[in-house]
Formats: sequence, structure tokens, C-alpha cells
Amino acid sequence: MDTWLRSRMHELNDLNSVINLASWDREVYLPARAASARAQQLATVQAIHHERLVDPRLGEALARAGEGGPDFAALTPDERAMVRVLTRERDRAVRLPARLVTALAEAQGEGLQAWREARTTKRFARFQPALEALLALRREQADAQGHDGERYDALLEGFEPGMRVKRLTPVLTALRDSLIPMVAALGEQKRPFPAFLSGRVYDTGKQWQFTMRLLKAVGFDLEAGRQDVSIHPFTNSVHAQDVRLTTRLDPAWPPAALFGTLHEAGHGLYEQGFSPEHHRTPLASVPSMGLHESQSRLWENLVGRGRAFWVHHFPALKEAFPEALADVELDGFHAGINHVVPSLIRVEADEVTYNLHIALRYELELAMLRDELPVSELPAAWNERMRRYLGITPPDDTQGVLQDIHWAWGELGYFPTYSLGNLYAASLYAAANRALPSLEADLTRGDTSSLLGWLRANLHMHGFRLPAEERVRAITGEGLTDRDFLAYLRAKYGALYGVKL
Amino acid sequence: MDTWLRSRMHELNDLNSVINLASWDREVYLPARAASARAQQLATVQAIHHERLVDPRLGEALARAGEGGPDFAALTPDERAMVRVLTRERDRAVRLPARLVTALAEAQGEGLQAWREARTTKRFARFQPALEALLALRREQADAQGHDGERYDALLEGFEPGMRVKRLTPVLTALRDSLIPMVAALGEQKRPFPAFLSGRVYDTGKQWQFTMRLLKAVGFDLEAGRQDVSIHPFTNSVHAQDVRLTTRLDPAWPPAALFGTLHEAGHGLYEQGFSPEHHRTPLASVPSMGLHESQSRLWENLVGRGRAFWVHHFPALKEAFPEALADVELDGFHAGINHVVPSLIRVEADEVTYNLHIALRYELELAMLRDELPVSELPAAWNERMRRYLGITPPDDTQGVLQDIHWAWGELGYFPTYSLGNLYAASLYAAANRALPSLEADLTRGDTSSLLGWLRANLHMHGFRLPAEERVRAITGEGLTDRDFLAYLRAKYGALYGVKL
Repeated sequence: MDTWLRSRMHELNDLNSVINLASWDREVYLPARAASARAQQLATVQAIHHERLVDPRLGEALARAGEGGPDFAALTPDERAMVRVLTRERDRAVRLPARLVTALAEAQGEGLQAWREARTTKRFARFQPALEALLALRREQADAQGHDGERYDALLEGFEPGMRVKRLTPVLTALRDSLIPMVAALGEQKRPFPAFLSGRVYDTGKQWQFTMRLLKAVGFDLEAGRQDVSIHPFTNSVHAQDVRLTTRLDPAWPPAALFGTLHEAGHGLYEQGFSPEHHRTPLASVPSMGLHESQSRLWENLVGRGRAFWVHHFPALKEAFPEALADVELDGFHAGINHVVPSLIRVEADEVTYNLHIALRYELELAMLRDELPVSELPAAWNERMRRYLGITPPDDTQGVLQDIHWAWGELGYFPTYSLGNLYAASLYAAANRALPSLEADLTRGDTSSLLGWLRANLHMHGFRLPAEERVRAITGEGLTDRDFLAYLRAKYGALYGVKL
Repeated sequence: MDTWLRSRMHELNDLNSVINLASWDREVYLPARAASARAQQLATVQAIHHERLVDPRLGEALARAGEGGPDFAALTPDERAMVRVLTRERDRAVRLPARLVTALAEAQGEGLQAWREARTTKRFARFQPALEALLALRREQADAQGHDGERYDALLEGFEPGMRVKRLTPVLTALRDSLIPMVAALGEQKRPFPAFLSGRVYDTGKQWQFTMRLLKAVGFDLEAGRQDVSIHPFTNSVHAQDVRLTTRLDPAWPPAALFGTLHEAGHGLYEQGFSPEHHRTPLASVPSMGLHESQSRLWENLVGRGRAFWVHHFPALKEAFPEALADVELDGFHAGINHVVPSLIRVEADEVTYNLHIALRYELELAMLRDELPVSELPAAWNERMRRYLGITPPDDTQGVLQDIHWAWGELGYFPTYSLGNLYAASLYAAANRALPSLEADLTRGDTSSLLGWLRANLHMHGFRLPAEERVRAITGEGLTDRDFLAYLRAKYGALYGVKL
């Protein structure tokens, strides 16, 4: 590849690295009074990144190196993929008028402000005009970036390249229709809330130590990354050798730290797994948010809420918290961390009910963008679906339609990636079990290396060589499906609850 | 001022901010395997900063706004100072050929490598050719950047704008000649090394807590900055509201933390004190390294090693370390932290001997740059001066000529700023005492706010409005002088050692 093009790829990558570093720092170590200075610094570097990305010379170099261009024949397959990925990113940036970027940023600021005030006063009406303005701008954005009549596709493309509404809707609808009776059947069992998660105290220092143990246990390389504490756990990769996770420590709720760490470790293992020859290139990235989420959910849920994993780790957990866990044994613990209950808040939902929260949001944001649902009717539509899907009704909008920050700044198209993550995770884990017959036995010995090795070789090291669903198909033989996920839920929760699902 | 010029100032400032953030992070939180990735990220952002700085359009805008330009008359005095400071920085950057920058970077890499190997093998000869190559490049740099026949001036200008050899040499020589007999006279007292600093253990957690207490006590704003731990303490200001200090915790040597923190706090207070209207402009910077060092030394030594300060803080220190300090009272502690002894290592030197280490280095680097001292004769010249100034001889070059990293990467012109800092600190502190008759009494009550308020109003808030010596003259009525510093030493150490100096 052209030296100049290669060096531009490195430069864009390095700029992203410092943006990620400054964003990470903002959440973990930024002094209180530095918030506006940091916002300015980020805006400056992001503007330079944008300027370099839309630079016409880069467009020309990419055209020469792309399919049909004079330099294409001389490129390796990986170089062609790099050109493809960067061209796609550049085209989307070029198509977005600067005026629209500015208008969106302002509307997002106003949206956040209105959303906060609506939450404080519990009045959705305060937020309604801001959301209407954001929707209008998102429609403009979709039209600028291009679509085949379905504006939502253009927004979805920003998070899930290659995914389309006509592919996604049938899958999420079928999933929803399978989950509603499953949740109802589990609810009929009327299992009490686990006692060890009610009013017991778990020392946060011990929790921290245990999360570090978990990171080592799953193979997260602490010489190529680190963990810190933040209010909302997140992963921010500065570079494949500099992957930063956070966890949350709540003395009354150890699952926040245990499963927060395992979730972020899943993201982090993916980022650490890129091939060294892809570093500082567009291939050192994850093909979609859904595929990224597949790795966090795989480690958090498929592995981390599995019995085999805790056969190995529960004795150490009990040793760390001898008082709080005095009356708890492995099976009670396993049942407790897999307690299913319809709840109002998405981020607290268990893995059975979770995707119903997503189905609801996806349906509503799609209808709003299509102008099929007036924003004024959103709260009623939310509550009606909550009742239909989960059988509960929010006491007020802060525990309903105003709970997520996504719509507050007009983020549409992101929610479905959570469900895609859950579905891909189950399919990948099923494929791993087929390929590694000893996997469950390995986990009971605390050995996750066979699983990580398989994920590295089949998924992580490939970076962005293929779009998400194509990559999954290459691994599992099938693309997006709810079959593996539903089979996993039926087997696991059927056994835990002693009921046929 | 022109909106475009103002926005360019902001952009350059923000780029410096992220460079500083990434540099800070490298020293405190970077995962071990991310070192080369971080070096690449820093190089990328530094290259962009350089590109924007030498951009001809910026040169034209500065020419229009500078003295004699059409826009000059409309500017405020502060805006004129901004233009002056940025023009100076830009001119220096423009005059440095890209080829020389690359050659220097390579020679620095080789220099560091050769220096490390020379230290390991205790063979100066291993380092000699690398230092010769660096000297040749520094002469080229000086010629490119311009001087009046004294190349050293061009290098000094990089750290101490406005200072010249012909101004500096007489001051440092006179200082040296006053210090030599003073050190000898104190040495004749044969005071034993303080027992509380010999083989006692000071819990590092308690040390950390005490340094945080000190930061609050001197008025460092922990909502506009933070402290972390690193191997070598340093200050790195991301922004005036985001000033990052580090300290070092050594269980056997609490002065490292106590005076390390006070030293860095002095730097940090200066950076936090810039006027808000100067933020993100070239005025939000310190006029010279010497003036920066004056603030670190003022808080570390003039305040922090003073008796008044410990009248207030010693009881708490004793409470923090009841065993190690069981037999120590205030006066013994004060004497112990001001123990004077000729020693081999500059960074461990007390405030009486310290400037002799600098005189030696200044004389040698000036002679080398002038081609008056062949590099092959450097070790002998070093040892000869050590004997003459301090009466001791290094057992090997690692404890002599190879001890500092500065020459390892060809940094010439930096050492004298340490002595300038000590001299400016004493002059400023003397002026503060004249202006604030109750200052010593304030300190015994633990109140440093009058001193900080005075420094803020007279020094910190002015940023880079004036060059260092002019700023000092505006405050004290006199520029660079060794009189205040020598008077301070004579009074303090005469009393402590019961001897007329």
C-alpha cells in the first residue's frame, strides 16, 4: 500500500487513541472543575480527526486503492479490507453536512438538558419538543447519508454496519413473541428474591480484589490494559495493548462488580485480540456494536452466570465474604445470580427479560422515526408495551420512558445492538461448545484458555475484515438467529426453575 | 483579535493539553506493553501541533497582529502579549529544519541507549561518541535558531526566554564562590546524620495521607488538579483547572514524599493561578523554567523546610508516625530536614550544596558547546570540579558525570534554570516577607493563604505577560541576584549550625 495512505491510516488511528484516552480520563480521573476544558480539548481533536478524514487527498488515495482503482490489484486482501473500511467511514463523514453536525450537537445539548429537567419534574412534556427536534435532525441525517426508503437503516448503519430493518425486525419480533410466554411461565414459579442479595454488606475493597482475580482468570492481559472504578462501567480501548475497563463497587450489590467486570472484560478481550499487523489500521476495530456486545455478554452471562464457572470460583468468593455468604452454597448462589423477574429498568434486567426491554425500544424508535408514532403519544405507547410484554406498569416516566439517556441526545439505532449481542453471543457459544467438547469441564477447573483461544482464532484476530453477520456466519455456519439463544434460555432456566419452557 | 487567530491559539493550546495528558498518563497509568503505541500517539499529535504552528497562514495572521502590523493598534495589551509569545514560539519552530528535528530525535534515542549501557558497564567511553554527535547537532540547532556569537544562548532561550550567558555567568560564578566556603564552614561542624532518617520505617499509606494534607494546607485546589504516585515526581498541567502532580513514596525516606509533594505543589499552584481570561491562550504559561522552579523551591524550601511551617504541621506528622518519630522534637526535626552534607548526587543535595552541582554542570556544558572542552576530558573535568567545589570524588562515573539524564539526550541549557529557580525563589520570598509582615506568624498557624494570595496577584495571574526577569523586577524592584538567596542561607544555616557564615 501507498506509504502516504498507510501513514494517514496511522494518523487517524492515533487521533482516535488520544480521543479515547481523554474520554476515559474524563470518566475516571478528571478533576471536577476541568469538565468544560476537557470538552473543548475533545472537540478540538475530534475536529482535526474529521478534517483529516474528509480531506479530498485521502478520498483520492482511497479511490485509487479501492475496487476498480489503479492500485487495487497490488494490495493484499487485508489492505483491501482496510481501504474498504476506511472508505465507508469517510463516505459517511463526507455526506454529513457541517451545518447538520453543528445543529445536532446543539440539539443534543438541549435534549440532555430537557431530559434531565423532565426527570426531575417527572414531566415528559418538558422533554417532548427536544425529542421532536432531534427526530427531525436524525431524519435529515438519514437522508444525507442515504438509504433505500427506510431512514432507520442509515442510523443503524452507524452502529451495525450492514444490518437492515427488514432483516432485523422479523428476528426481534419472533424473539419477543417467544420470550413473553417464557417470562410469564417463570413468573408463575414465584421464586423469592435471593436473601444473600437483600441487605447484606460486601466490603468494596474485597470486591475490587475479586474483580482483579476474575480479570486474570478470564485471560485479560493486565500488562496490555487496566481496570479502574467509575460510576457506570465501560470499556475504552486506547490501543489493543492499552485497553481500559472500569467496574462499579456497591457494598450492597456485589453483582455490579462481578458481572460488570466480566462484561467489560468481554469487550476488553476482543480489543486485546486484534492481530498486531492490524494495529494502527482500520482493521483494528470491531465490525459492529452488536458483535462487540456479543463478547461482553458471552463472558458476563454464558460463562459468568454459568454453574461451571462458579464451581471453580465460588469457594474463593465465599472466602472473601465469609459472613455475607455464610448460609449460601453453590447452587443457591447460581440460582440467585440468575433470578428472573420482570422489572422496570433495562440495565437491571436479567437475561430472560432483557430483550423485551429492547424490543419495546426498537419498535418505538422505529415508529417515531417513520412518523408513525407522535412523540406526544410515546409515554402511553411505552406503558402499554410494558404491560403487554412484561406485565408491569411504571409508576412514573422516570422509571419508564425517561429512564435511558439514549433518546435524550437523539441516539436512535443503538438499542437493537444489545439484542444482537445477546443472540450472537449464544450462537458463538454454541459453536464453541461444538468445537471444544471439554469446554464445560475446562470451566469447572477455572480454565478459560481454550474458550479464549477459540474466540481469538475465530473472531478477535480478524478485526474488521468482514461485517458482523458475515463473520458470525463464517464461524457458526449461520448468521443472525434467535435459535441458539432461545435454546440456551430454555435449557438453563428450565433446569433452574424446574419447568418446561 | 481576529476570530481565526484566536481559534488557532485555542487549537494549539488544546493540542498541548492532550499531549500533556498522554505524557502524564504514560508515567502513572500506562500498561507496560503500551509504551511504543503511546510513543507513536504522542509523535502524531506533536507532528500535528508542529504543522499547525508553522502553517504560513498563522505566520501571516501573527504578522498582521504584531507590532508594525495593520491589526496591532486594535489589540488590547494582553492580546499583544499573546501575539508576541506565539510569534516567538513559531519563529523558533520555523527556523528548525525538519531534517534537524529528525536527526536530533534519532541521536537522542541513540544517546539514551548509549548512556544506559555506559551506566551499566561503568564505561564513559561507551557514551562519548553519542554525546559528541548530540553536541554537533545542538550547535547546528543553535545556528539555525540564531544567536549573537554565543550558541549556548540559543539553547538557553528554549527554557529561559530572554536570559543570556553574559548575564548568567557572572551571577552563577559569584554564587559558586560564595557557596564553596559556606559548605566548608558547615562541614567543619561535623553534625551527625539525623537518626530519624536512618533505618526507620514510615508507612507509605500514612505518607500518602500526609501529602494530601499538605496539598490542602498550601491551597492546591484538588477540584482543579490531582495527585498520583510515580517513580520520579513531576507536574504536568493539562489545563489551569486540570493540574496533575505526582509524588514518590519510600518507606525509608519520608522526605521524598513530603518535599516532593511540596515541590510539585509549588509548580502546580503557579499553573492553577493563571487568569481565566488567559486560558487556552499563549499567556496561560510560565515565562521560563527558572521562574517555574522558583515556585517549586519556594514552597519546598523557603516555606516547607522552614521552622514556622512545621510549628503547625509537626504535631500531625508525629501523630501519623508515632514510633519512627517517638524521640524527635520540632527542633530536631527541623535540623534533620536541613542537614547539609556534600554529596555526589544532585537530586539528593540539600539547598546549600545544590547550586554547586549546577555551577559545575553549567560550566562544563558551556565549555563543551563552545568546543573548549573535548568530550573525552569531561569525566576528569567533572571529578576535578567535584573535588574543588564540594571536596569529594565520585567512586565511578555513574555517581559522577553519568548521573543525570539531561546530557543523555543532549539537553543543554536546562541545568542553570534550577539555580535561577533557587535565586528567584529567595528574592520573591524576601519581597513577600516585606509585603506581609505577619507571614512567619501566619505560617506558624498553618495559614499559607496570605502568601498564596500575594503570589497569585503578583506572579501567577500574569502568566507570560512579561519575560521572567522582567516579571521578577516588577515584583521585587530588582532582577536576577544572589543576594537574597545568600542572605537566606546565612541567616538560616548560621542559626541552625551556630556558626557565622
